[in-house]
Amino acid sequence: MSAIRPYDALHQHFARIGHVEEAIEYLYWDMATQMPSGGADARGEQLATLKVIEHQLTTDPRVGDWLAGAEAGALDDWQRANVRECRRLWTQATAVPEALVEALSKAGSTCGQVWRGARAQDDFAAVAPHLSEVFARTREVAQIKGEVLGLDPYDALLDGYEPGARRAQIDDLFGDLAEFLPGFTADVIEAQASRGLGTAPAGPFPIAAQREVGLHFMKVLGFDFDHGRLDVSAHPFCGGGGADVRITTRYREDDFVQSLMGVLHETGHALYEQGRPMAWRAQPVGRARSMGVHESQSLLMEMQACRSQEFLALAAPVLARHFGGGAGDPVWGADNLYKIYTQVDRGLIRVDADEVTYPAHVILRYRLETALVDGTLAIADLPDAWRAQMVELVGVANPDHKDGCLQDVHWMEGLVGYFPTYTLGAMMAAQLFDAACTQVPGVRAGIAGGDFSPLLGWLRANVHGHGSFLSTDELLTRATGRPLDASVFKAHLTRRYLQG
Amino acid sequence: MSAIRPYDALHQHFARIGHVEEAIEYLYWDMATQMPSGGADARGEQLATLKVIEHQLTTDPRVGDWLAGAEAGALDDWQRANVRECRRLWTQATAVPEALVEALSKAGSTCGQVWRGARAQDDFAAVAPHLSEVFARTREVAQIKGEVLGLDPYDALLDGYEPGARRAQIDDLFGDLAEFLPGFTADVIEAQASRGLGTAPAGPFPIAAQREVGLHFMKVLGFDFDHGRLDVSAHPFCGGGGADVRITTRYREDDFVQSLMGVLHETGHALYEQGRPMAWRAQPVGRARSMGVHESQSLLMEMQACRSQEFLALAAPVLARHFGGGAGDPVWGADNLYKIYTQVDRGLIRVDADEVTYPAHVILRYRLETALVDGTLAIADLPDAWRAQMVELVGVANPDHKDGCLQDVHWMEGLVGYFPTYTLGAMMAAQLFDAACTQVPGVRAGIAGGDFSPLLGWLRANVHGHGSFLSTDELLTRATGRPLDASVFKAHLTRRYLQG
Repeated sequence: MSAIRPYDALHQHFARIGHVEEAIEYLYWDMATQMPSGGADARGEQLATLKVIEHQLTTDPRVGDWLAGAEAGALDDWQRANVRECRRLWTQATAVPEALVEALSKAGSTCGQVWRGARAQDDFAAVAPHLSEVFARTREVAQIKGEVLGLDPYDALLDGYEPGARRAQIDDLFGDLAEFLPGFTADVIEAQASRGLGTAPAGPFPIAAQREVGLHFMKVLGFDFDHGRLDVSAHPFCGGGGADVRITTRYREDDFVQSLMGVLHETGHALYEQGRPMAWRAQPVGRARSMGVHESQSLLMEMQACRSQEFLALAAPVLARHFGGGAGDPVWGADNLYKIYTQVDRGLIRVDADEVTYPAHVILRYRLETALVDGTLAIADLPDAWRAQMVELVGVANPDHKDGCLQDVHWMEGLVGYFPTYTLGAMMAAQLFDAACTQVPGVRAGIAGGDFSPLLGWLRANVHGHGSFLSTDELLTRATGRPLDASVFKAHLTRRYLQG
Repeated sequence: MSAIRPYDALHQHFARIGHVEEAIEYLYWDMATQMPSGGADARGEQLATLKVIEHQLTTDPRVGDWLAGAEAGALDDWQRANVRECRRLWTQATAVPEALVEALSKAGSTCGQVWRGARAQDDFAAVAPHLSEVFARTREVAQIKGEVLGLDPYDALLDGYEPGARRAQIDDLFGDLAEFLPGFTADVIEAQASRGLGTAPAGPFPIAAQREVGLHFMKVLGFDFDHGRLDVSAHPFCGGGGADVRITTRYREDDFVQSLMGVLHETGHALYEQGRPMAWRAQPVGRARSMGVHESQSLLMEMQACRSQEFLALAAPVLARHFGGGAGDPVWGADNLYKIYTQVDRGLIRVDADEVTYPAHVILRYRLETALVDGTLAIADLPDAWRAQMVELVGVANPDHKDGCLQDVHWMEGLVGYFPTYTLGAMMAAQLFDAACTQVPGVRAGIAGGDFSPLLGWLRANVHGHGSFLSTDELLTRATGRPLDASVFKAHLTRRYLQG
């Protein structure tokens, strides 16, 4: 018999799991960017089989023995952190009985399908029984996971996306923001109106030129094209991982605004992926820390670095050149572009929301999903609760369901506990960017001059290179000197939108 | 406990294996067409892990029980054929001890790597010890497989690529051809010289135009773009499978000849894939029958259908239009194109060989690899044996090793028993095409008129739709009225090259 150490067995086993997950990533990317339509059913089967294999590997009974053996053995710091992450994944995967996992998956799949047809018809009644079923199963999952993990049920769901995050902390952070945002939004809208809004340049903006602009700024930000590429998909995303990162965007000939910021957003995700510790690439400790930290990296690039006056002054002549703007044409000037890229509106749709109102959309969802999991809100009462929260937080009332509680896919497919990570990411982005600017004097000047290396160097050392070695709290505290709070984010918003 | 029938368990298990194999196909395609260079190591790991999983699934000890149970149960014809194919795959996968499989794989990988460096240096001595190791392990594998399958060792290797084929039959077929080809080649070269060779149109031929021409004729041949696509890779291939077939080509701006015929060749492979029985797509019985039958479908399209006068008359005006040839310019006339596309030369390199000399290259390799497996030829004597066979079969002597026995990757990587399938495919192609033309009067007229549906309809019914339901012998006999022989192939060559 071989005398393989428990740690080595664990390492080898999780490498295999990591490779299967990577394979799933590239098959998903292919489905979204390359696959002909007739391949859909077969691809669904391939992905389902690989997910079953991944789950079987993760819940392999031998993993429990290897974990116990490894935890009792001599390990270096990274190995010990890796074992900790292996145990976390194993506990998450084995906590819930297979039959319940399947029941939730089936409920989410059915509800998602019904929702796709019912949304356009604004038919909440058609969705309601299926969404009730999703939340009934979700509450069971949350209950069982909570017992295994020793957590409040909602926290047990949250922990799957944002390890270590707790609703007590989020209640504080979001409570702080919820008090701030409504009045602030009104002030910003008034101030922007009195200063005058930006003027949209006239299109069309040829797709080839938009792609060139995107590639140009990916390079400026530090994207490594030996380890990644840019393609087109219906819904932009960052896929693949580590050594080979695939980002996507979509183009509209009549609008270059969304595509460029979309590319910069996904580039932020990609830089995190490209900066993960490559020796640990396929191991749990080498992965991205959490959904929130991932979103912090995309929002740091998009919102903090690239919607700044410095960056838009750098971008203005490049955009003018590619889209045929005349030299000196004020519509292609940095001031006008800055107005366009920072305009605030009270909108109904989260994914179209600006930097100021986006957190209000997220807080609304967080409040409602915690109530749905607690059982203090019934699905039947969801539409009214949604409208009331929209009025309170965003300042508009949705006239229908399709632009109200039927707008997002997340709950329909059983994704509960995910929404908070968007705004946690936005706050982390502000706090991290502020720390980078304070600690490295060249960051802002670098952005203005098209040299992102001071910023990227700091992110590599303080965020990317850690993978999952540190907890999110440890990462934030080491990088910025304190745990996450809302103050830097609020200060950023105030500076950009009221003092800008 | 569930009372799942052994057949159903087998079916479900092999579906999973099929999905993993499909996943491997798309990851390989991605590697060859999309992947940035820095992803190579990670991709190698992903592919290796999926191959290990595929092998573990195929050799799962439960498969033996399910096979026995299924074989004893009530099954319909397709289920019974599927069980037969499952057993064949299981027997092949379990016959050889893992340690020996790994030893051969390692020897092939090492030899392949050494060969990549040594070929350009013409350094046979550097390769020889590694190639000896490959053949030593290959002979062990052949011995063990032969005992399990009750076959001659070489036949046991052959059976992995061409189920049911035996060297006794190939000796007859290739012996017949080997007698015919040398004199025939001399006659053809003399006749073509006396008729005058074709004139190559002057380039450059823009790649975008070559791609359009390729897509145009893929459509003409019947390629279904809802279930496939065309891309670029260093070495053209047909990948993916069934519902989503990915073919590739490569382009040279100074030559459109190879690219077009390359696309038509891969389209022949793709049509086979797209025509497999879709309900059985992921099952062993739904797969392509063999390497030889697959090659028959590519060569039937490329050699039989598309190097014909009918097809080139159809193609001439399309090529002239895309590449800017003037109307009536004889260089873009069908007669000149036909001369170009059927010119015969005595060359040293198999992959550049024409329809007439290609089989001679294959027969050479078949003779030498059987002798190497038998142990009647030593690696040290390979270069001399190669040169002697080149003189006998092709009529030229290679001046060095790199254009001699160092030209192919196959043996270097341990692929022994594969070469004969190229020429078995060429002979099958001739016999099948002849039968199609005899049985369906509209086939040749359809090709001339750009309507391949009579031909494709016959292939769907007689070849593609059978998957692996029939043995190759049964397939040929049902479709053409008799087993494979060399006579139709020889008659085709004679008609095209001496009476054309």
